[in-house]
Amino acid sequence: MHGAGDVRVEDVPDPTILQPTDAVVRVVRACVCGSDLHPYRSMAAAAHGSAMGHEFLGVVEAVGASVVTVMPGDFVISPFAYQDNTCAFCRDGFQTSCVHGGFYGHGDVGGGQAELVRVPQADGTLVQPGIALADADEAMLASLLTLSDVFLTGHHAAHMGGVAPGRTVTVIGDGAVGLSAVLASKRLGAERIILMGRHTSRTDLGVELGATDVVPERGAEGVERVLDLTGGEGSHVVLEAVGHMPAYEQAYGVVRPGGSISRVGVPQYEDAPVGFGSLFGKNVVLSGGPAPVRAYIEDVLPDVLSGRINPGRVFDRTVALDDIAAGYQAMDAREALKVMVVI
Amino acid sequence: MHGAGDVRVEDVPDPTILQPTDAVVRVVRACVCGSDLHPYRSMAAAAHGSAMGHEFLGVVEAVGASVVTVMPGDFVISPFAYQDNTCAFCRDGFQTSCVHGGFYGHGDVGGGQAELVRVPQADGTLVQPGIALADADEAMLASLLTLSDVFLTGHHAAHMGGVAPGRTVTVIGDGAVGLSAVLASKRLGAERIILMGRHTSRTDLGVELGATDVVPERGAEGVERVLDLTGGEGSHVVLEAVGHMPAYEQAYGVVRPGGSISRVGVPQYEDAPVGFGSLFGKNVVLSGGPAPVRAYIEDVLPDVLSGRINPGRVFDRTVALDDIAAGYQAMDAREALKVMVVI
Repeated sequence: MHGAGDVRVEDVPDPTILQPTDAVVRVVRACVCGSDLHPYRSMAAAAHGSAMGHEFLGVVEAVGASVVTVMPGDFVISPFAYQDNTCAFCRDGFQTSCVHGGFYGHGDVGGGQAELVRVPQADGTLVQPGIALADADEAMLASLLTLSDVFLTGHHAAHMGGVAPGRTVTVIGDGAVGLSAVLASKRLGAERIILMGRHTSRTDLGVELGATDVVPERGAEGVERVLDLTGGEGSHVVLEAVGHMPAYEQAYGVVRPGGSISRVGVPQYEDAPVGFGSLFGKNVVLSGGPAPVRAYIEDVLPDVLSGRINPGRVFDRTVALDDIAAGYQAMDAREALKVMVVI
Repeated sequence: MHGAGDVRVEDVPDPTILQPTDAVVRVVRACVCGSDLHPYRSMAAAAHGSAMGHEFLGVVEAVGASVVTVMPGDFVISPFAYQDNTCAFCRDGFQTSCVHGGFYGHGDVGGGQAELVRVPQADGTLVQPGIALADADEAMLASLLTLSDVFLTGHHAAHMGGVAPGRTVTVIGDGAVGLSAVLASKRLGAERIILMGRHTSRTDLGVELGATDVVPERGAEGVERVLDLTGGEGSHVVLEAVGHMPAYEQAYGVVRPGGSISRVGVPQYEDAPVGFGSLFGKNVVLSGGPAPVRAYIEDVLPDVLSGRINPGRVFDRTVALDDIAAGYQAMDAREALKVMVVI
C-alpha cells in the first residue's frame, strides 16, 4: 500500500530464512481485513509502500535450523501475529503480548497478501490443521482461513466477555468480525443473540449464523430496542466489533448491571466513559484487545473440520492476488463483506 | 451535614415504619466512610442538612407487617445499600443495582450516623451475624462493622479482579479500603501483595494484614518499582482503591498483559484512557463498582467469627455520636484511618 486507496502488486525479493526460528511459507489463501481499511482510507502517500496482509494459509517452503514442529511441504495456518508460544504471557493465553512476538508487515517481516512470507517464531506460530491441502475443498479452506484472524477474533470477544449457556449476548456491528462473534456466541451456547446492524444482507447472514434478533436502530433508539427485547434488564454480554465511540456508547447503554462489554473492534479513540454514569455505577466489566488467536486454534479446529461450524461463510468474494486492489475497493465500498485472495 | 466542614448532631423525629417491608433499627456502632469526606470537603452550604452514614450494626426496634427474617431484639448488620435480595440483579450478585434498592441518607431514608434508622427492604437487607450483641467484644464489633462496607468493598475489588492463589496483586491506596483489599487478597490466597502507599503508619498495618511489598513511590517512578518487583511482567491483578485519575494511570501502568484492574474507589472522573495505549493493547480487563456487600456477608462471616481475619483493625479511633464532628475532622486531616462511632 502506497497511500490511501493506492494498492499495488509489486515484485519484491523473495523472503529468506533470517533466524534459525524462521520459516518461509508459500501462501495459498490470504484475505483482506477490516483493519486493512484504516490505512486504505487514511494512509499518507509514502515513497516506499507497506507490505499488507496478516491472515493466510500456506505450505511451508523452508525452515530455519532450530524449527522442529513444521517442515517443508506442511500445510499450515498462521495466526495474524507471531509468537514463541512459550513466554509467560503466551502461557497465560495472551500471545499477542508475546515478548518475542510481533505483527506481519512491520520491520523486516513482510505481509501475507503475497506469494511468500517469512514467519518468525515458526514453532510457536504455525499450526497444521490436521487435513491435507489436497483434501480441503474451497469451503473448508475458507473456514480454516478464518482461524488466522476473523473467526477467532469473534471468539476472543465472546470468550473474554464470558459468553455461556443461558446468557443474552448483544453483538454490535454486522461486519465480518461481528458476524463471527455471533457464530462464536452460538457455539459457546448463548441463549439469545441480538445483532445490532443495519445492512440487511449482512444481518440475514447473521441470523443464519445464530442471531435470534436483529436491531437495525442505532444510538438511543437502538439502546431502547435492546432494553425492550431484554425485559428492561439489558444484555449479560455485549460484544463490540466496531471500534468507534458510538458503538462503545451503545455498548454501555445496553449492558445489564453486573454484565460485561468485550471489545475487539480496534478502538479509534483513547479516552472513553468509564465512571459512575457508564461502567462503574452498574459494575460493568470491560474486556477485550487484540485476539491471541494462537491460544484458540486447537480448541476450535475440530468443530471446523467436522463441519459443525462454517466460519468461512463470511467470505463473499474471491480475487486473484493480481486483482487485490479490486478486493480492497469492494470492501471499502461495502460491496463485499470479506474478500479472499487466491494465490 | 450542612455544608463543607459543617457536621452537626441534631434532634430529628424518630423514624417509623412506613412500608410493611421496613424495619427500624437502634444503632449500636456506626462509622465514617472515606466517601463521606467528599461532601465534607465540597458540599455547598444548605438550608437543610443531609443525613449521613451508611455503615452500622444495631438492634431491631420494630418491623413492618411483612418482615419475616428479623424481629425486634435481633442484632443485625446492615449493608451500606438496601435491597430486596430477590430481583434479577440481586440473584446475579449485584445487589447495589437492585430494582427496589437504594442508599441511606437519600429521600425519606435517614443515615446510619444516628440513634435510629429506618431500613427499607429489611428482609433483603439485614443479616444476623450469628453472635449475640452481648457476646461480641469490642474487636468483634469492629470487625462485624466492616461487613457493612469497608472490608467487603475491599473483598469486592479482589473478587471482581480475580484474586486467586498464585496471583500477584497490587493494591493502590493505603486508606481503609486499600488495606481491606490487602486483607481480602490474602484471604483469597494471593501469592504476593504489593501495596502502593506512602503513609508509613498505614502501610505498616498493610504489612500486618498481608502486604508482602510496599511501594511508596507514585506515578512513573511507582510504576517502574512495581515492574521491577515483578520481573518486568507487571501485576496479574490491580486493585484501585483511590478513585482519582493518577491512581487509574498507575493501575494500567503496572498491570500485566492479560491482567485485570478492579476499581472500588468511586471514580472522580467520567472519561479515562481505555484504548490501545492503556487497556486494549494488552488485553486488560477493567472491573469494579459499588460493592454488593449483601452478596458476600454469609461467605465471610465464619472467618470473622472464628477470628481467622480481623478486618476491624482498620479502625484506629472511636468517638461518641455527640463528638462525630471531631471524627470527620480527624479522618479529613488523615490523623485517623477510620473512625468508629459508638452510639
